[in-house]
Amino acid sequence: MQPVKVALLGLGTVGRGVYRILTGNAANIAQRVGAPVEISRILVRDLTRDRGIQLDPSLLTDSYQDIIDDPEINVIVEVMGGIHPALDYVMDALKRGKSVVTANKDMIALHGKELFAAAGASGAGFFFEGSVAGGIPIIRPLKQCLAANRIQEIMGIINGTTNYMLSKMTLEGMDFDQVLREAQARGYAEADPTSDVEGLDAARKLAILASIAFNSRITLNDVYVEGISKITARDIAYARELNYVIKLLAIAKETPEGVEVRVHPTMIPQYHPLASVNDVFNAIFIRGDAVGDVMFYGRGAGELPTGSAVVADIMDAARHIVHRVPAFMGCTCYEEKPVKPVALAESKYYIRLTVSDRPGVLASIAYAFGDKEVSLASVIQKHTDGDRAEIVMVTHRVREQNLQDALRLVECLSSVDRIDCCIRVEGE
Amino acid sequence: MQPVKVALLGLGTVGRGVYRILTGNAANIAQRVGAPVEISRILVRDLTRDRGIQLDPSLLTDSYQDIIDDPEINVIVEVMGGIHPALDYVMDALKRGKSVVTANKDMIALHGKELFAAAGASGAGFFFEGSVAGGIPIIRPLKQCLAANRIQEIMGIINGTTNYMLSKMTLEGMDFDQVLREAQARGYAEADPTSDVEGLDAARKLAILASIAFNSRITLNDVYVEGISKITARDIAYARELNYVIKLLAIAKETPEGVEVRVHPTMIPQYHPLASVNDVFNAIFIRGDAVGDVMFYGRGAGELPTGSAVVADIMDAARHIVHRVPAFMGCTCYEEKPVKPVALAESKYYIRLTVSDRPGVLASIAYAFGDKEVSLASVIQKHTDGDRAEIVMVTHRVREQNLQDALRLVECLSSVDRIDCCIRVEGE
Repeated sequence: MQPVKVALLGLGTVGRGVYRILTGNAANIAQRVGAPVEISRILVRDLTRDRGIQLDPSLLTDSYQDIIDDPEINVIVEVMGGIHPALDYVMDALKRGKSVVTANKDMIALHGKELFAAAGASGAGFFFEGSVAGGIPIIRPLKQCLAANRIQEIMGIINGTTNYMLSKMTLEGMDFDQVLREAQARGYAEADPTSDVEGLDAARKLAILASIAFNSRITLNDVYVEGISKITARDIAYARELNYVIKLLAIAKETPEGVEVRVHPTMIPQYHPLASVNDVFNAIFIRGDAVGDVMFYGRGAGELPTGSAVVADIMDAARHIVHRVPAFMGCTCYEEKPVKPVALAESKYYIRLTVSDRPGVLASIAYAFGDKEVSLASVIQKHTDGDRAEIVMVTHRVREQNLQDALRLVECLSSVDRIDCCIRVEGE
Repeated sequence: MQPVKVALLGLGTVGRGVYRILTGNAANIAQRVGAPVEISRILVRDLTRDRGIQLDPSLLTDSYQDIIDDPEINVIVEVMGGIHPALDYVMDALKRGKSVVTANKDMIALHGKELFAAAGASGAGFFFEGSVAGGIPIIRPLKQCLAANRIQEIMGIINGTTNYMLSKMTLEGMDFDQVLREAQARGYAEADPTSDVEGLDAARKLAILASIAFNSRITLNDVYVEGISKITARDIAYARELNYVIKLLAIAKETPEGVEVRVHPTMIPQYHPLASVNDVFNAIFIRGDAVGDVMFYGRGAGELPTGSAVVADIMDAARHIVHRVPAFMGCTCYEEKPVKPVALAESKYYIRLTVSDRPGVLASIAYAFGDKEVSLASVIQKHTDGDRAEIVMVTHRVREQNLQDALRLVECLSSVDRIDCCIRVEGE
């Protein structure tokens, strides 16, 4: 059989993983595809840099034109990341009918619609399993294996950096700054950790998952986002006392008022399957009307895990080429569902307050909550230093708007120093 | 678009689930497939029996010939179970080039080779996601999403009945007979529970998974099988003391001496992701050379969960028909790997013995083990009734053959009353 020729755009962490897998597992891959899969060009910015892998230097090029004009190259693998020039290259390739494989969540979460439209118009295959949760199969399972279901809910741990940090805080009692430094030293967090720590990375992935699950285009801008930087060792200890674990969850639900999409620190019961997903592992919990609850677990990032997903996509694209069959799993956003404002979302809430330690304080707080129809499920009051006390409350299910209104009232009470923390409680 | 016409063979639990999903989610399914999917005939033995669902009685037929001779029916969905006549019907359909969807693990585990050959010869699609682990996506993820990997190991909880029973024994301290009666009362175990309890059901599913994972045909007869009927509340209590949990695991490994395939009660560490899979839930843990560890979790049986997998397959078959594209994911058993005899398999072992409570007994036992090169990792000795004692040991990793030889020596010691239990320890 004629080999299927592939070009890599980029040779960073994921690119190296793809190269290693395609060369290291070549014989099996050829058998499973029906033809050898060959990397014939690799686009890099700097032709001379040492990349820590052995490769034939003649594969490297710094000219995208060289690649796109080569009629023998049928699959373009974009693993450079970022929006520009990745988007321009990918759009160009799709318009020319070349299959594209990408792991670029930023690009899909913002420009998914135009990418699918370009692929649909030319009949090119467009594959992006590696864009969410690294090596964990999730895009194809959602699109195919669970296609018989109306998906009701997705809850996922889809950012490894923050899960590593929260796991360390939970299991070893470390505080936020300390664990962030450790994560940076280990290469799990970047020098500027904002995108991970503030939840943006998870929000991009959630936009992609929710679009597929609910058949309606969700973009990054639709997702309500809160990061973990305000989580303290103190809240983690209280969570344990209440039999919860704190995770940064990406949550998407279909509701009568529209699609809820939010990323925020969340307390979940210790018995929940996501509660024991620790370290850099990711897991995605899905509820379908037929299948019930399913969960997918594995490594959400890294050279070889993400490479595993990208190469699986390359193999799928190659199979279509070998069998001369057009790609027919295109865009699945055949509906336009409204996005539900977060103010209308319902949740239980954990709230921690610092107050004056004197009689009547709790009553005034409870009165303020009651005034906004927020009912309390449990209250713990602890004396702290001097004349201060700490109150920890968990509410019953309530609308976000009511909770925020109540918190504004509580904040104004003279006996309340400050609202230290407010974390949603889910999964019960 | 012209509807894709489907016939169901059988209307038992899974058949009803398929009917409910195809009719209940019809609009979404039509959108996702690109054409409506219509059940046009249902084969049943008794046309008059009440099946607890509302359906047009003219759909029912007791003649397979009616179905197979209908040129408009393109997808045959076999959900009758058993080998005959299911195998004859399915072979006939495949030979005629009709796509077949089946959830029949018994048939595939025994006759997979000839089924794939028939499908390959005619170009018919052959789909069987529902045959393993109910609604959990596993066949397609193994064949496609993890295709870039050399799979090294599979460890799965793939029988819901035994997992329910072991969970109850672990969490509520019930004994085997008591929990079996409860499982039967709840409909989780059949009147004759042999196939579940003795591990045969799990062995069939493991044969299917291992064939895909290692690209070499494994049949039911290749799988070493031990059931859970000898597991006592006592062993479960000792497992807890040793920080283990007992699960009925289906294990497949690729080793230099061949493929290991075995189903048996297994102690795994409490921190292992499979340890917290309780009740009727299933989970499959897979280790690939690129992806690392991944796990798939969900409901392994039931009308709607298994229906979810079967309908996903029907939708895949229908997409191929709509796009006029032949099925091209055929048999992946392109190698012939030997099956490793269980005598050569390596494991740690938990062993419980009843012995005379007098000095020197432990020394004689330890000597017998040492003689067969079995080294002991830990030993607990407890006084029981009268002059008897109980010894619980965990070995280091050792070949099964050596362990069995050692047990034969130990059995002959005059101070040893009996070997009460021997359970493999894995996953550390």
